Amino acid sequence: MIQNDLFLRAHRGEAIERYPVWLMRQAGRILPEYRAVRAKLSGFKELVETPEFATEVTIQPVDLLDVDAAIIFSDILVIPEAMGLPYQMIEQKGPWFEQTIRTQAQLDKLDTDIDVQERLWYVFEALKQTKAGLNGRVPLIGFAGAPWTILCYMVEGHGSKTFSESRKLLYTQPILAHQLLQRITDVTIAYLKGQLAAGADALQIFDSWAGILGEAQYREFGLRYINQICEALQDVPFTVFSKGAIASLPEITQLPCTTIGLDWNMSVPLARNLVQNHKTLQGNLDPCVLYGSPQSIEQETKKMLNSFKSQRHIVNLGHGVYPDIDPEMVKVFINTVKNYEITNNANS
Amino acid sequence: MIQNDLFLRAHRGEAIERYPVWLMRQAGRILPEYRAVRAKLSGFKELVETPEFATEVTIQPVDLLDVDAAIIFSDILVIPEAMGLPYQMIEQKGPWFEQTIRTQAQLDKLDTDIDVQERLWYVFEALKQTKAGLNGRVPLIGFAGAPWTILCYMVEGHGSKTFSESRKLLYTQPILAHQLLQRITDVTIAYLKGQLAAGADALQIFDSWAGILGEAQYREFGLRYINQICEALQDVPFTVFSKGAIASLPEITQLPCTTIGLDWNMSVPLARNLVQNHKTLQGNLDPCVLYGSPQSIEQETKKMLNSFKSQRHIVNLGHGVYPDIDPEMVKVFINTVKNYEITNNANS
Repeated sequence: MIQNDLFLRAHRGEAIERYPVWLMRQAGRILPEYRAVRAKLSGFKELVETPEFATEVTIQPVDLLDVDAAIIFSDILVIPEAMGLPYQMIEQKGPWFEQTIRTQAQLDKLDTDIDVQERLWYVFEALKQTKAGLNGRVPLIGFAGAPWTILCYMVEGHGSKTFSESRKLLYTQPILAHQLLQRITDVTIAYLKGQLAAGADALQIFDSWAGILGEAQYREFGLRYINQICEALQDVPFTVFSKGAIASLPEITQLPCTTIGLDWNMSVPLARNLVQNHKTLQGNLDPCVLYGSPQSIEQETKKMLNSFKSQRHIVNLGHGVYPDIDPEMVKVFINTVKNYEITNNANS
Repeated sequence: MIQNDLFLRAHRGEAIERYPVWLMRQAGRILPEYRAVRAKLSGFKELVETPEFATEVTIQPVDLLDVDAAIIFSDILVIPEAMGLPYQMIEQKGPWFEQTIRTQAQLDKLDTDIDVQERLWYVFEALKQTKAGLNGRVPLIGFAGAPWTILCYMVEGHGSKTFSESRKLLYTQPILAHQLLQRITDVTIAYLKGQLAAGADALQIFDSWAGILGEAQYREFGLRYINQICEALQDVPFTVFSKGAIASLPEITQLPCTTIGLDWNMSVPLARNLVQNHKTLQGNLDPCVLYGSPQSIEQETKKMLNSFKSQRHIVNLGHGVYPDIDPEMVKVFINTVKNYEITNNANS
């Protein structure tokens, strides 16, 4: 039984006394306590792959920032690695894959019949330990990257401003792209089901590179696979966050999930108009607001809260919190949300 | 007198026999002939600052690709440099500024009363030489970065995925941001007027980082200054290209300019509905289409052409052409446009 279940109730559209709040990337570099753990280790991947440490940094923001949900500390790129495409995380540069998938032969070399329990045991173990460590204080969120975003890294091999190699594939080898997306989707569904079994109370899909596709391509190569994942996980509190896919909002809001994540550039009135009270919205303060003064953070946060006009709102930033944000300013944001009174104009 | 003035007629909404076509970044790395010029020089900046070479590479795509307009080879960052903030262009990395503008004291150190003729003589000289070299074959486009995009580089000091330092300034020091934007705007207006005097037949503003701001911030820190520039240059064929600013399209299309550039993710029917036939639209083929086969390039180009439904259309890509695109595939795109018959459904 979860003591503070505001987050889960908001997902399901049940009555809430106040808005739940958490931050994307809350378990991370903003906290000196996180950096202290990280400094003891060889690198980012050791943290991801060692359940004791992943558990410790997952619980830190619950203790230190008093957020209404924990999100397991992990990385979306554990999926390509489980499929047979290992990566390194290079300091100051980001992820780097030795091999990429640009041909049928390369796709055929990926592993099949993957046992996610065996390959991603460390994530499931971290979820179990976190669940025990949280002791029912707040819900625990599991997550995965969306198939399109995972494909981007598997094809490009690293980050990119344009992901032109990945987009090229959609025009030159659409069948190969669909094969790869389907394989990522299948592994992702097994992975997310495993996360639920290991103790996750809710799930989120991150489609970080949704915004580089136009509407028609995002429908064909993005949403089609997210839809499969949502359908496989019905009745779970489930958030889809398609960053930057502003033009696709009408279709995103039709997905069979409970909650839609909004980035800070997405129009809250438009999204609310699309979902009415049939879905919950999550977001969407511009993370840069947290660089401001306490007064301006309070003012901008209230403005954001006023705009959502429904109890179906889980408060978050519109993007992961930036690493150089002062945790004290994060607390100003969180306290503003907690002290905000749900009024009559927010009738669910 | 310009022999092929299709591009100018399309700007003004006059009758055209076929759609004019050119490519953003057509004078650049896609052409082996460009790379040959570049290889003789110390670096990118020597090319920008030497009128003979800038002229040569500006005319290359007119000779080699038979496009309907030339765009002067230059860089948007000549403006911060003219304001007293020099930069280097680092191979494989991009622009790098030694100093940045994050405080009032730093802003106060920028030069005032700038004589653009003196500081940017090499751009004006390149325009004059290009004009002579073109000998009236096609119109010549001058350009500048939009004030918001220029501010991004002056504050951040280099490229970035989030430009969080620049966005931080909007929350923490909005007055400083406005002061800097106004100074950039004033220099940009003088610069663009100088380009017209030196022979430019049309102008384009590139707002490469428009898409990282939400609607309200883009109105206040982006469009307000672009509007000043448009107003200072009325009656000039003038294109505003605000990349990624999908949510702001209704406001962008209200600007006092002749033409709106669309990126490949912007909805052509929506934009056409907003401008009707009061403005020209420019764009918007996904550059990644040019990685495909000649057949698929032809098919996608025709689909794009069909979608614009008006003679007020200047054909282009929705982004600069990527450096590894085969020039032969660019020719397939250009020829498809040239052979496309303007039908009755495109009634201006």
